[in-house]
Amino acid sequence: MLTERTPRVAAARKLLRRAGRDKAGRFLVEGAQAVREAVSGGARVHEVFATGTALSRNADVVSFAEGRGIPVTLVTDAAAEGLSETVTPQGLVAVCDLVDVPLDTALQDARLVAVLVNVSEPGNAGTVLRAADAAGAAAVVFGGDSVDPHNGKAVRASTGSLFHLPVARERDLTVVRKALAGLTLLAADGHGELDLHAPEAAEVLAGPTAWIFGGEAHGLPATVLEAADHRVRVPLYGRAESLNLATAAAICLYASAAALRPIQGSRITDRA
Amino acid sequence: MLTERTPRVAAARKLLRRAGRDKAGRFLVEGAQAVREAVSGGARVHEVFATGTALSRNADVVSFAEGRGIPVTLVTDAAAEGLSETVTPQGLVAVCDLVDVPLDTALQDARLVAVLVNVSEPGNAGTVLRAADAAGAAAVVFGGDSVDPHNGKAVRASTGSLFHLPVARERDLTVVRKALAGLTLLAADGHGELDLHAPEAAEVLAGPTAWIFGGEAHGLPATVLEAADHRVRVPLYGRAESLNLATAAAICLYASAAALRPIQGSRITDRA
Repeated sequence: MLTERTPRVAAARKLLRRAGRDKAGRFLVEGAQAVREAVSGGARVHEVFATGTALSRNADVVSFAEGRGIPVTLVTDAAAEGLSETVTPQGLVAVCDLVDVPLDTALQDARLVAVLVNVSEPGNAGTVLRAADAAGAAAVVFGGDSVDPHNGKAVRASTGSLFHLPVARERDLTVVRKALAGLTLLAADGHGELDLHAPEAAEVLAGPTAWIFGGEAHGLPATVLEAADHRVRVPLYGRAESLNLATAAAICLYASAAALRPIQGSRITDRA
Repeated sequence: MLTERTPRVAAARKLLRRAGRDKAGRFLVEGAQAVREAVSGGARVHEVFATGTALSRNADVVSFAEGRGIPVTLVTDAAAEGLSETVTPQGLVAVCDLVDVPLDTALQDARLVAVLVNVSEPGNAGTVLRAADAAGAAAVVFGGDSVDPHNGKAVRASTGSLFHLPVARERDLTVVRKALAGLTLLAADGHGELDLHAPEAAEVLAGPTAWIFGGEAHGLPATVLEAADHRVRVPLYGRAESLNLATAAAICLYASAAALRPIQGSRITDRA
């Protein structure tokens, strides 16, 4: 049984931090559902650590992983706690290769893309990733100073969607903008000139588009707003002053999905 | 300066619990933005407790409240902490009358209503309330074993929307169902037979409707699903297995807002 002092466990613990993940090219995936998604979703899973309790509770996931040739190793409760960021550790943690892909690979032939710019809150970022997956987006780009999509809280909030569609990271927003050439750029902005529910918007949404979403506190930088083809606002019919990022993003992406549906019924890419 | 032992502060502390709120008919509103919304939103605010720091930081809100004849009393940091449920107490807490109204009052002439059934997580409930406000719903009903809309976390997640539109509470779902007579009942359900983006759905959404949302863990009870006119699913175009409650509710309510928009541009009620 491996303890928290075993070098393999100590090395895995470094993956809790972004610097450690980027250096090793690996990250941690916690919990039965997420581990199953990682194994089945095509991520390269190196090994799984499990406590005795987790082994008996999640026999299905454990044999699923072992069936794919992934070693499952028993660890102490303390070792599992050290690899967990949650209040109630599930005792089941997988070590995987980072899943992000180069920007051009992610965007190839894409018709609907979600781009996060300086979204620092991992729960929000993961929830947008989940909504983008559900709405049939072809890819999600984590741009500028956005959180790492491999952050533990972001992975949990994505509920497996991190393994479902191509995710790219790029700090340089000029590079992101160049890679999005050919897509109509829609900046989500509460003060945007185009109303999401206006008839003109439906025409725009039926073409190949990239939605750009900013962080909750500051919204999108002025340069990004100016570079976009349209600044689109989710109309507020009642007295609410705003919507939170994840809610607004889901409404925007589903408006796109509805507009693209007559063109293509499922995942929205030219390749499909 | 009032301390945590002052009877008025001790009495206010009992409002942190649902039983205390229901007994006193009052609840607590914390933070500058929420206190401002309470004072301006027509809630009956009895008094405001503020620490010295909060008084100097929020002079505008304090004078706004005093201008409306609401007493603002200086309290110790310990007293303010005792009235707070947040990790970083803001030192500004208002004591208000409960804002919920009778079911029939809330639903009068309503064309678009959101009904929560057994939604126990306060953050989710508050986020749905905010989305319902934004989408122009006429009222929100907290039905069955749903959380109290006056719960501190629900109030914070609603970001003022609790004061923007009529909110009703009713434990007995039979009573809720009778009160919704005249509205088409749409049960949001991942396995529903009606696709939200199908052309048939647009017709349904253009009429007077009540959306019914269940809790995240168990969804809607079978009896509620059966009693609904339609069970509506948010289509999943990608590989995500589901959406979270607040996201799904926002997408459903905004689909209604889009369908009702040609009929009425702003808040969606026959009275408007």
